[in-house]
Amino acid sequence: MRLKVKKLNFSSGKPTVIIDDETASNLGVRPHERLFLSYKGREVVALVIVAWQIPRDLVLVSDEVVKSISVDEGEVVEVKPALTPKSIRYIRDYLRGAKLGYREIKTIVKDIVEDKISEVELTALVTAAYLRKLSIDEAYYFSLAMVETGERLELDRKPILDKHSIGGVPGDKTSLVAVPIIASLGYTIPKTSSRAITSPAGTADRAEVLMPVTLTLEEMKQVVLKTNGCLVWGGALSIAPADDKIIRVEYPLSIDPFLIPSIMAKKKAVGSTHVIIDIPTGRGAKVKTIGEAHDLAKEMMEVGSKLGMKVTCAITFGEQPIGYAAGPALEAREALLTLMSRGPRDLLDKATSIAGALLETVGIENGKQIALEAVRRGKALSKLKEIIEAQGGDPDVTPDDIKVGEHTYTLYAEQDAIVLWINNKLIANTARLAGAPKDKGAGILLHAKLGDKVKKGDPLLTVYSEYSTKIQAAEKFLEENPPIGLGVPGAEMLIELIHAPKLHERLPIIER
Amino acid sequence: MRLKVKKLNFSSGKPTVIIDDETASNLGVRPHERLFLSYKGREVVALVIVAWQIPRDLVLVSDEVVKSISVDEGEVVEVKPALTPKSIRYIRDYLRGAKLGYREIKTIVKDIVEDKISEVELTALVTAAYLRKLSIDEAYYFSLAMVETGERLELDRKPILDKHSIGGVPGDKTSLVAVPIIASLGYTIPKTSSRAITSPAGTADRAEVLMPVTLTLEEMKQVVLKTNGCLVWGGALSIAPADDKIIRVEYPLSIDPFLIPSIMAKKKAVGSTHVIIDIPTGRGAKVKTIGEAHDLAKEMMEVGSKLGMKVTCAITFGEQPIGYAAGPALEAREALLTLMSRGPRDLLDKATSIAGALLETVGIENGKQIALEAVRRGKALSKLKEIIEAQGGDPDVTPDDIKVGEHTYTLYAEQDAIVLWINNKLIANTARLAGAPKDKGAGILLHAKLGDKVKKGDPLLTVYSEYSTKIQAAEKFLEENPPIGLGVPGAEMLIELIHAPKLHERLPIIER
Repeated sequence: MRLKVKKLNFSSGKPTVIIDDETASNLGVRPHERLFLSYKGREVVALVIVAWQIPRDLVLVSDEVVKSISVDEGEVVEVKPALTPKSIRYIRDYLRGAKLGYREIKTIVKDIVEDKISEVELTALVTAAYLRKLSIDEAYYFSLAMVETGERLELDRKPILDKHSIGGVPGDKTSLVAVPIIASLGYTIPKTSSRAITSPAGTADRAEVLMPVTLTLEEMKQVVLKTNGCLVWGGALSIAPADDKIIRVEYPLSIDPFLIPSIMAKKKAVGSTHVIIDIPTGRGAKVKTIGEAHDLAKEMMEVGSKLGMKVTCAITFGEQPIGYAAGPALEAREALLTLMSRGPRDLLDKATSIAGALLETVGIENGKQIALEAVRRGKALSKLKEIIEAQGGDPDVTPDDIKVGEHTYTLYAEQDAIVLWINNKLIANTARLAGAPKDKGAGILLHAKLGDKVKKGDPLLTVYSEYSTKIQAAEKFLEENPPIGLGVPGAEMLIELIHAPKLHERLPIIER
Repeated sequence: MRLKVKKLNFSSGKPTVIIDDETASNLGVRPHERLFLSYKGREVVALVIVAWQIPRDLVLVSDEVVKSISVDEGEVVEVKPALTPKSIRYIRDYLRGAKLGYREIKTIVKDIVEDKISEVELTALVTAAYLRKLSIDEAYYFSLAMVETGERLELDRKPILDKHSIGGVPGDKTSLVAVPIIASLGYTIPKTSSRAITSPAGTADRAEVLMPVTLTLEEMKQVVLKTNGCLVWGGALSIAPADDKIIRVEYPLSIDPFLIPSIMAKKKAVGSTHVIIDIPTGRGAKVKTIGEAHDLAKEMMEVGSKLGMKVTCAITFGEQPIGYAAGPALEAREALLTLMSRGPRDLLDKATSIAGALLETVGIENGKQIALEAVRRGKALSKLKEIIEAQGGDPDVTPDDIKVGEHTYTLYAEQDAIVLWINNKLIANTARLAGAPKDKGAGILLHAKLGDKVKKGDPLLTVYSEYSTKIQAAEKFLEENPPIGLGVPGAEMLIELIHAPKLHERLPIIER
């Protein structure tokens, strides 16, 4: 069939055409099927969206189609149904219970990267992977295929160390402290991080307060060659690009079946040989129990081993924020203070424990002690400044230089009591309402943490925001959702009465 | 945030807006989330598509948005993130293993009908229902909710009989014969049917050769009140509208977890009290084994019973086409001939067995005999003519009046032998390449069936098409994919050698 081109003048992420219902019926295609378009010997396969009220001789095309076949408004293209890609058959097989092998998974991942798979098909894969659970082999093949379909950092060095947290605890700026420690001791650590999706800040957001983090792979390589380390945003690199597309459908469903391939592929793609995975665990974290943490650790270590990486997992305390700050600027400042030995004890302990354990995997004894020394002697701070300079930031930045939101709201204790609990999710929600992570200066500073004694009138936390409307929204939310629980230990044994059934929401690990 | 409206000038099925990536980030929404748009006190919630290269102050809106808030090109609307609908939470709960109750399922189905659920979310539901399998209760609640969210046929009569085939065998024009039989005996049978999606003809396609089938519910009611029966296209009525939307995502995935709710809802919505379900069974059908047919029958009967319907299931022979004709016009002609007692024996037997069994469920004895009499005495033919007239067709239509494609191609036997197998899927594919069901005159006429002796040079089948290009395509396909197997029984015991693993494709039941 010959159809006249009308340009949509936007890019939808993959070659897409919109045709009228009647035209679709005449062509014998249905929504989510594919059309083969040809124009002057150039060809493209596009996904079909069926709409109504479109002239029947028109095909509306996205920018990707225009680019692929260099066609202009009003030109006539030849259009016919396209064959179903093999990857779709493999996804259907997987739905029906088949085990996927390397060949099938590679084909699927390649087609995900090349945008040949529709969202319906990708969602079916993600949902099925969640319900069926990926086997160790499948997780390994997905990891490998993700690495192979993306860019890779090639460093002529060994060992290459790396660190990753599955996240879920606000204020977890451990990487900002641990990466300079490792690099300052002469080990290579090409650290990539994500931005926040549901939290007040990701490591990339925090680091961006101190330096540019949107680097190319070549720029990242130069920074690592010069300083042994880096703190860059993984999203700007094309390593494991399939993962970004998978996250796009995982997110609205609040599921994360591709967590392990995603993390492992990103570590493998930068050439890591020794990796430590932080699994914050606790009621307010993504992983609730030690048992769950062990299960996850086992799978990550097995998949890592198949990929030729030595993976160690660290179960860490996740029932409250790390340090006192949550939000990009507040956290960057706290990390800097910690490297100046003026930071909170829990952050220093966590960062040096993680760095120390990682050092021990390459044969260093007394890793934690050595990590602590690197902080105390200022070596780690100097290294962070080197990294900041190499990435294009100001190495002379001081904690006082870091601007935080000028609008503030402080919550005070209404009684003399002890802090019994801190709700991570409510802390995160409040910080986000205040503007984090988009507004770098927005966030929360805690004044008390678990077990602290407070007196009536003592400040519990301060919210920072760059805008008065946002501080009001955060204040309103705080009033209705107190994130800090005060009381006398053991005095209130009833946790909750259940009058109507309600499922407990599990937090997916989308920021990875 | 305030954005300027640009109209997309098409209807995408649900309120949809397209915004730039940067605008989405500023609003804090991600693809598949929802935006709340307000304009002069009018409000609408729309699904977000994120694109690139769009001016940041623009929001591109589909016709549904324009209609909802009566907004014009260039006007400014207020835009903010919308809350996640409850139905989405229930779908997420279901993914995580929750059992759904009536309240949750009703909310989900209502939101499906009102287009509040994105395709990603609907796909997750469909995939999860496929992998988890709906329980009898869940299937019942979905059926009930589908009925309640659509139109219903209200007839002040009892009993109301109905018949449905799960399909999968080409040429199955049983309804065209069985419906007039039932109606001619004074019983009410308000039959709705689907059009073909993957087969050469659905009952609606076949019936449309003889009469209009796109009736409103009120028109259908008048036909039934006048003649006791009807043969209308269900897709034009708004009964169980959720099902059409579910099928849209089932189809590209080749899965059909909502088969039972779909069928049962459509029967219940027209008020049926006694239903017979035909389950064609055999290697070339959708249901392969008698055991599988029993499992499906059990579930349908249990769900039917909860809905207050007496459901009977008929397992029928499905290893070859019914009668000799496949394709709308060829089949309509064969059905007409059968009602004139000049049709194929298998079709007459199947139609009278089904009609007879249905009659017996309302207390008639010797149902099959009575059904056969209704055909032999011409009562069923007269009734079909009444129905044709009531629906606006020509009651005087004769088999010779029915036009079939003028382009033909005949396949001949290359040896003296016996017909050992007929491949339903290849028959269907050939007929579709010839133009069926879109071209009513296209299709296949078999000249031999299972067990028939043929001599070298005898015709095996003739393909009919309205276009020479299509007959060529069908001919080419036939040469490469012989749909009829000849040989000597017992002489060739090896069925297949497997050199490379390959999953067997199961046909989903989408036409229902």
